[in-house]
Amino acid sequence: MSVTAARGFRAGSATAGLKPSGRPDVALVVNDGPRDAVAAVFTRNRARAHPVLWSEQVVRSGSARALAVNAGNANCYTGPDGFLVTHRTAEHVAAVLSSLSPGGPEVGGGDVVVCSTGIIGVPLDGGLLLGGLDAAAASLSPDDAASEAAARAIMTTDTRPKAAVHRDPSGWTVGGIAKGAGMLAPALATMLVHLTTDADLDAAALDRALRAATRVTFDRLDSDGCMSTNDTVSLMASGASGVVPDEAAFTAALTDLCRDLGRQLLSDAEGAEHDVAIRVAGAASEDEAVEVGRAVARSALVKTAVFGRDPNWGRILAAVGTTGAAFDPLEVDVAVNGVLVCRAGGPGEDRDRVDLSGRDVEIVVDLHAGASDATVWTNDLTHAYVHENSAYTT
Amino acid sequence: MSVTAARGFRAGSATAGLKPSGRPDVALVVNDGPRDAVAAVFTRNRARAHPVLWSEQVVRSGSARALAVNAGNANCYTGPDGFLVTHRTAEHVAAVLSSLSPGGPEVGGGDVVVCSTGIIGVPLDGGLLLGGLDAAAASLSPDDAASEAAARAIMTTDTRPKAAVHRDPSGWTVGGIAKGAGMLAPALATMLVHLTTDADLDAAALDRALRAATRVTFDRLDSDGCMSTNDTVSLMASGASGVVPDEAAFTAALTDLCRDLGRQLLSDAEGAEHDVAIRVAGAASEDEAVEVGRAVARSALVKTAVFGRDPNWGRILAAVGTTGAAFDPLEVDVAVNGVLVCRAGGPGEDRDRVDLSGRDVEIVVDLHAGASDATVWTNDLTHAYVHENSAYTT
Repeated sequence: MSVTAARGFRAGSATAGLKPSGRPDVALVVNDGPRDAVAAVFTRNRARAHPVLWSEQVVRSGSARALAVNAGNANCYTGPDGFLVTHRTAEHVAAVLSSLSPGGPEVGGGDVVVCSTGIIGVPLDGGLLLGGLDAAAASLSPDDAASEAAARAIMTTDTRPKAAVHRDPSGWTVGGIAKGAGMLAPALATMLVHLTTDADLDAAALDRALRAATRVTFDRLDSDGCMSTNDTVSLMASGASGVVPDEAAFTAALTDLCRDLGRQLLSDAEGAEHDVAIRVAGAASEDEAVEVGRAVARSALVKTAVFGRDPNWGRILAAVGTTGAAFDPLEVDVAVNGVLVCRAGGPGEDRDRVDLSGRDVEIVVDLHAGASDATVWTNDLTHAYVHENSAYTT
Repeated sequence: MSVTAARGFRAGSATAGLKPSGRPDVALVVNDGPRDAVAAVFTRNRARAHPVLWSEQVVRSGSARALAVNAGNANCYTGPDGFLVTHRTAEHVAAVLSSLSPGGPEVGGGDVVVCSTGIIGVPLDGGLLLGGLDAAAASLSPDDAASEAAARAIMTTDTRPKAAVHRDPSGWTVGGIAKGAGMLAPALATMLVHLTTDADLDAAALDRALRAATRVTFDRLDSDGCMSTNDTVSLMASGASGVVPDEAAFTAALTDLCRDLGRQLLSDAEGAEHDVAIRVAGAASEDEAVEVGRAVARSALVKTAVFGRDPNWGRILAAVGTTGAAFDPLEVDVAVNGVLVCRAGGPGEDRDRVDLSGRDVEIVVDLHAGASDATVWTNDLTHAYVHENSAYTT
């Protein structure tokens, strides 16, 4: 399933010793072709980790044969040595893959996407990492179990692996794995997500589909407003199905898949007790709808109110007011889980009618300023979030 | 002391019944002249409460005779009736003051600044408020005790009153009271602060001094990133000292006073255990220094790390990277409480040397991109913050 569901892909994983827990912490995904097309989107944080700087260059060529991921260390702010570790990782994986397939195509370091996740500012032990990758290469397999193990190896504070797959009736498949349980924020890829497809698509088509899909899914997740230095969403195509999909159909399926993975990330976000969908309707533009949704998603007062099961719509409107979006405070409506608690900028239905006992919360803000809408997803702010992020260095 | 320290001012307070606790909740400050100059800065939240909308108009004229404040209800998002309550409040206070001084100058509603703080979206009971103001007017006094009682009456979740005074050797005095223990955020006045002076200054001079002072003090407090709908910093001048101060000296004293009150607010912020000063040096401009400081101040991951006494500088740099400020990630330095934990974008001195056991924390980020600097103040994110903002509707 998931990252090996598409034909032409194998996954492997192993324990390099980078996680204090001693759990598996490296994963490899290999594209056996015939195609080696790749696309990716990266964090928009200007402090980008070494593997992001490296992988941006790899993806620019439009082709990649393999993806090497480690958890336990982000290899970010680790100085020039950190970049050398990333470079050596790519060269090492290329050499190992070449040696495993003596008759196969030559693999160079420039064919290897590298991702790291974990603590920032601590040197990444290259010896441990390369040893782990050797073991991961030895375990490469197209089986479901290999995909499942890879999904576990890339976990950090995640409590469970995330995976999804779409098998298209027209003969192609797209699937993937994801990790990320905090530091989810928009304007970037927001996590590590590795997608594979056997559809026969070139890098340009992959790039278009991936950007369209992430724009309305991962880019609109905002768990805690914090933007990571390492986030990467990659999509590799083997072409092994031999099917050239309709691009719109492929993009739609990819978008659904990304939304599914995004929801899995949200529902496992650090310490969260509620998953909150903030739908902004009646906006003058989609951008303004997203701006308003994000402002509400980032309000510590809204997030603590949701944790306390308090439909405190005043805090929602206070957040809306911090944006530049067009709206008249005397016209805006707010509904929480279906109850119109604020009508035309004043008290509406009885807030005691709102039931916030379940995990899912829907906040609808109608600005009455236009015809555009957008949804942003976030979590509540809980004691467990504070505990997890204060008691541990991550 | 404080709001009645300057000659020409009286304060009064009473219990109107607006606070569930039954504590005093209304305050009056009256300027007996000879001058009636006023200036104020207000929240930049676009969802402004009715008293803000009213008081903006009052201040535009440059003159005011009185200030009426209530806690317990923000009178925000309360519909057209809410504005009528504010309007009635001003007219009522004007009538009461006129009746108390039959021979004195006529006071109109347009001479009364009105401020409210408390819950949003719940109708404010005008009857209770006006009754409380009658009682407050009956208690008007220039005594220290009256000022202290007024400082207590404007408190919401504050645990202690805030006050400060500066007596200038040249013969004039400026002092004030403040409240605000959460929802402190920049780009606005961030709280209720009421300042009085007996210096002989006109409204234009007051306005210049107040804007200069708040720009580098209250505007750079960011407790929880949440911008209130009601924040107001007012400054009234009676001219009763007869002294025309040097404007630069007055501005400097006012700035120090505002910084003092700002620190008092920070040290009483909801649930906080640390007061964090983030000094950004080596920025290309002051605006960029503020932008960087604010990004660090708003990072939930930085704030929880400080709570956990963890000098996690990677999280600080991840926050810096979200800004548009000029900097090279490979040149930036970070010091926490005097220990240079990050040097030139890589690990520096041992982070275990950092002592975060005290209340005060200083983070210095040197961007090495210019000669400008600025300091932004914030608090840590604690269990108590989450508790206070989830367990209670405020």
